[in-house]
Amino acid sequence: MNSLSEFDIIKRYFSFADVLPNSDADTLVGIGDDAAVIDVQKNPLVVATDTLIEGVHFPADFLAEHVASRAMGVNLSDFAAMGATPRWMTMALSLPQVEDEWLSAFSQQLAQICQQHNVTLIGGDTTRIDKGLVISLTLIGETQSKSGVCLRRNGAQVGDDVWVSGSLGKGAGALQLLMPSENIMQWPCSDDARSELLSSFYAPEPRLALGKALVGIASSAIDISDGLVADANHIATQSQVQIMLQGDALPIHSGLAAHANYQQVQQWVLSGGDEYELLFTATPEKFAAIQAISLALDLPCTKVGTVGEAKEGGVGVTVSDEGWSAQNQKGYTHF
Amino acid sequence: MNSLSEFDIIKRYFSFADVLPNSDADTLVGIGDDAAVIDVQKNPLVVATDTLIEGVHFPADFLAEHVASRAMGVNLSDFAAMGATPRWMTMALSLPQVEDEWLSAFSQQLAQICQQHNVTLIGGDTTRIDKGLVISLTLIGETQSKSGVCLRRNGAQVGDDVWVSGSLGKGAGALQLLMPSENIMQWPCSDDARSELLSSFYAPEPRLALGKALVGIASSAIDISDGLVADANHIATQSQVQIMLQGDALPIHSGLAAHANYQQVQQWVLSGGDEYELLFTATPEKFAAIQAISLALDLPCTKVGTVGEAKEGGVGVTVSDEGWSAQNQKGYTHF
Repeated sequence: MNSLSEFDIIKRYFSFADVLPNSDADTLVGIGDDAAVIDVQKNPLVVATDTLIEGVHFPADFLAEHVASRAMGVNLSDFAAMGATPRWMTMALSLPQVEDEWLSAFSQQLAQICQQHNVTLIGGDTTRIDKGLVISLTLIGETQSKSGVCLRRNGAQVGDDVWVSGSLGKGAGALQLLMPSENIMQWPCSDDARSELLSSFYAPEPRLALGKALVGIASSAIDISDGLVADANHIATQSQVQIMLQGDALPIHSGLAAHANYQQVQQWVLSGGDEYELLFTATPEKFAAIQAISLALDLPCTKVGTVGEAKEGGVGVTVSDEGWSAQNQKGYTHF
Repeated sequence: MNSLSEFDIIKRYFSFADVLPNSDADTLVGIGDDAAVIDVQKNPLVVATDTLIEGVHFPADFLAEHVASRAMGVNLSDFAAMGATPRWMTMALSLPQVEDEWLSAFSQQLAQICQQHNVTLIGGDTTRIDKGLVISLTLIGETQSKSGVCLRRNGAQVGDDVWVSGSLGKGAGALQLLMPSENIMQWPCSDDARSELLSSFYAPEPRLALGKALVGIASSAIDISDGLVADANHIATQSQVQIMLQGDALPIHSGLAAHANYQQVQQWVLSGGDEYELLFTATPEKFAAIQAISLALDLPCTKVGTVGEAKEGGVGVTVSDEGWSAQNQKGYTHF
């Protein structure tokens, strides 16, 4: 298989962009030239780049379809956090070797997710790397209107409510199931809960519909990828406010309820990465509107705190209630 | 230094986008949110992604500023080959460790090239990798007009002239100087020629002005990154024609003139990658216009062949003149 050229690989595995029904007239030049050309006489564009590295962001024995799901999910989650609609994608794929079975499974899954979200693969670069797969996706999409309004990190206001979608602790819980560390106890986890936790790690479900619905309603938003406290801190810093979370209000994933060590679960909820839920703020007047959106999307949204003045305790994050603390909850560190 | 967060790194090294004069009003949201937002109510957009991997695309002891120059040069060269204007960039940078000296040199050089070409860094992802730096740039820019017309690979017509910019053999010659292989003889190379060859490798000069000038004049174009014959073959395949090159017309870099083994030089010219010159086709009526462009830009453009019918010998590339042959000149293979 190693005699395949880059063009052979693109033709064999990644030309699905040309055959899917979502190949759109706005893609003037797709895969196969020096660059792609897209027609964008509409709303301002949104651009996000994310990289996944084997052995760092996922284990070496990760299935090809999970690499595809996770890479797309992580990147689409950034679009959810902007309230934007993805449209196009380029992929930088660095592979130690060309394996038909792997590439087939990977590209089929990629095609399926692209189709689901109406994303057209318009180009990229396929390269050889000595060891360890690296995949970097750049998604390009549109804001909801000509004005370019979207969900930012810097709009939280004193007095706002703080909300979180879905449930928390999933990322860290799944990691513990996947790569058990010796000094953390296992817990009785039903098959259903186990499979729910794992699939949230294999294929994060980006909250795109929620993000879009929150444009004009939320004052700020971020997706929880590095950890609740770490990401809340990004909003706090950029909005120059204090995010005051109520520990007992945080929605813990049901699969972790049977864990005997509640302290461990608390830490996972506060600092575990890979949640891909939205953390957002809104004025109390939007309470009913957010409940209505939550109901319409069949996605729980929970009020978990309020926004306070920075001067009370400096810009940052606090967590109230017994046993909870924002201290030393640094979340995922990149280096 | 390893306690730096991703945000610290961005703030310390890559926030130059905010202070350069070229930070433009069209960048509605730059670095620091979940995604960037750009305003593009103008011409269709051009998107290109390129990856450089340490040990594969450049040696492990490559200087930081050369990594920056080469990564930008390679990607900008794709824009040259489209006749497009770069505007924005995202960067996926995977580093084994955070070294201040390296990052300072790298980011300063990146900033300088961004400024030179009016490119705004709008986002990306900085990640840790176990071994070997990986850098993947996605450039976004504009076509020259609302119609989205640009230089494609599929427009060559029977009877067209074939042209090449600058000189050839630079990429392979520089590689031989950098990483001498034992079975290839060294040659007497003046200091000037040596430094010219090396700098063309360290910092490829993208032919952006030429590409833009050729929109509406050339019928097809590609940048020579994989090798003359390999890239000519891309035009031949996509245009369904035969590219007939005249070996003795090919402009060989003057630094290779003193090489005793002409056969070796011929092979470098035909199959050496990393030239970053433009190979393009145009009707014979455009001869004077191309000469005028060449003169205006002070960049030699040489007619090196013609476009023939595919049926004469199939779609592909031929090279005439004694000692030249297109056979077995596969160019750079990615796998």
